[in-house]
Amino acid sequence: MRNLLFEISYRGTRYCGYQVQKNGITVAQVLQDAVEQVFPRREPIVGCSRTDSGVHANQYFFHMLTDSSIPCERAVFALNRYLPEDVAVLSCREVPQGFHARYDCVGKEYLYKIWNMPYKHPFEADLSYHYPYRMRVEKMEKAARDFLGTHDFRAFCSAGADAESTVRTITGISVERDGGHVIIRVSGDGFLYNMVRIMVGTLLYVNYGMPDTESVADIIRSGERTRAGHTVPAHGLYLNRVFYDVEKWSDLAEM
Amino acid sequence: MRNLLFEISYRGTRYCGYQVQKNGITVAQVLQDAVEQVFPRREPIVGCSRTDSGVHANQYFFHMLTDSSIPCERAVFALNRYLPEDVAVLSCREVPQGFHARYDCVGKEYLYKIWNMPYKHPFEADLSYHYPYRMRVEKMEKAARDFLGTHDFRAFCSAGADAESTVRTITGISVERDGGHVIIRVSGDGFLYNMVRIMVGTLLYVNYGMPDTESVADIIRSGERTRAGHTVPAHGLYLNRVFYDVEKWSDLAEM
Repeated sequence: MRNLLFEISYRGTRYCGYQVQKNGITVAQVLQDAVEQVFPRREPIVGCSRTDSGVHANQYFFHMLTDSSIPCERAVFALNRYLPEDVAVLSCREVPQGFHARYDCVGKEYLYKIWNMPYKHPFEADLSYHYPYRMRVEKMEKAARDFLGTHDFRAFCSAGADAESTVRTITGISVERDGGHVIIRVSGDGFLYNMVRIMVGTLLYVNYGMPDTESVADIIRSGERTRAGHTVPAHGLYLNRVFYDVEKWSDLAEM
Repeated sequence: MRNLLFEISYRGTRYCGYQVQKNGITVAQVLQDAVEQVFPRREPIVGCSRTDSGVHANQYFFHMLTDSSIPCERAVFALNRYLPEDVAVLSCREVPQGFHARYDCVGKEYLYKIWNMPYKHPFEADLSYHYPYRMRVEKMEKAARDFLGTHDFRAFCSAGADAESTVRTITGISVERDGGHVIIRVSGDGFLYNMVRIMVGTLLYVNYGMPDTESVADIIRSGERTRAGHTVPAHGLYLNRVFYDVEKWSDLAEM
């Protein structure tokens, strides 16, 4: 039995998220359909993460156990032939049988793309969030530092989450201007339901509306969802990088 | 009577080019419809150039004579409200009555965007041309220098063109790698029908297929369309900049 790990990228616009579900087409479903064309059996695939409806992925992994002897390079080529234009397989490698795309994930980096010009971006209607008001990037970045470290993030979690613990560790966060865009980048060991989108909404609240007497640290401490900012739209959010423990799985070192 | 010059940008995917025509929706048509909502009359608009079906514009200009006293800034805001998500008005300024967006244009820059990776780009199906084969960028750039200067470009013109003269001057051309992309940039005083797309096709022919005994200069000299490369697809092409004579129209200096 071989365990194949595939690296993919997708534009989430047309999809009801990654995970297979009843209402509407999902990324997992079109992947599973392509797998059925290329492999002898409809081998079940295991994704590294759930992403919400409309969320994009610059990098995403799934693994699959198979008896097939197809070379990795040919599997990439063949799957891409059967996938729609908004889902691409970037690479494939054989990993130890015990490796699990989700359970072995030790961290992720998301980025949130804001188009910060008075007019809408004609090429990015579904690829960035249009926020036409003045953004004080330095002020936002300074406030964002409160997110760093290990905290109970229950104030940054939408209802409907089924996580047992709401404690997470944020290892990096930055707010940067890049021409007409402002890019917010967040990495951590894991994220609650809608957590990144509420964090970004809170930084926009810092930008415009939060009283000077309040801080992001206060909101985290309060544990109250109503004190954090609103949930910004899904279409600005990208899963950007997925991290595995390269000491444990040394064959993943170059990822 | 005021003469208003509008700077716009559009994603050409959904449109049968810029110019109003009978079959299918055009950029000029959605602009004209928005003008009708914002201005007291359906003032005719005059674009700076025709672009083909599927071709994009990072920058494009149109002018319009009007009696309306609407401030430029408000006209931008109001037009954007009525335009679809793939057409944006970037700016508006008042210009002398004699100024004509097309006749006063003294040059244009196009860029052609190639996605040069083995897999397709999931975010750019309609925004770049997927060319998965090896590209020798330096070889292409060297060959491209033959395009520079004033030549009869009849070999680089599709049938159906109605230009009186096929002589044009190319003032700049470059071929550059940018991550997984290769960007070809061409500027000149004017371009024949499909000229940039045939120039790019010829550079791909240089990259793979053209005998060493032949050169781009030979093809130009021959004047034979069949000796040049094929016409690459429209969806990689962007009108990138439009130039006006800033000495004659000094109020355009900052464009």
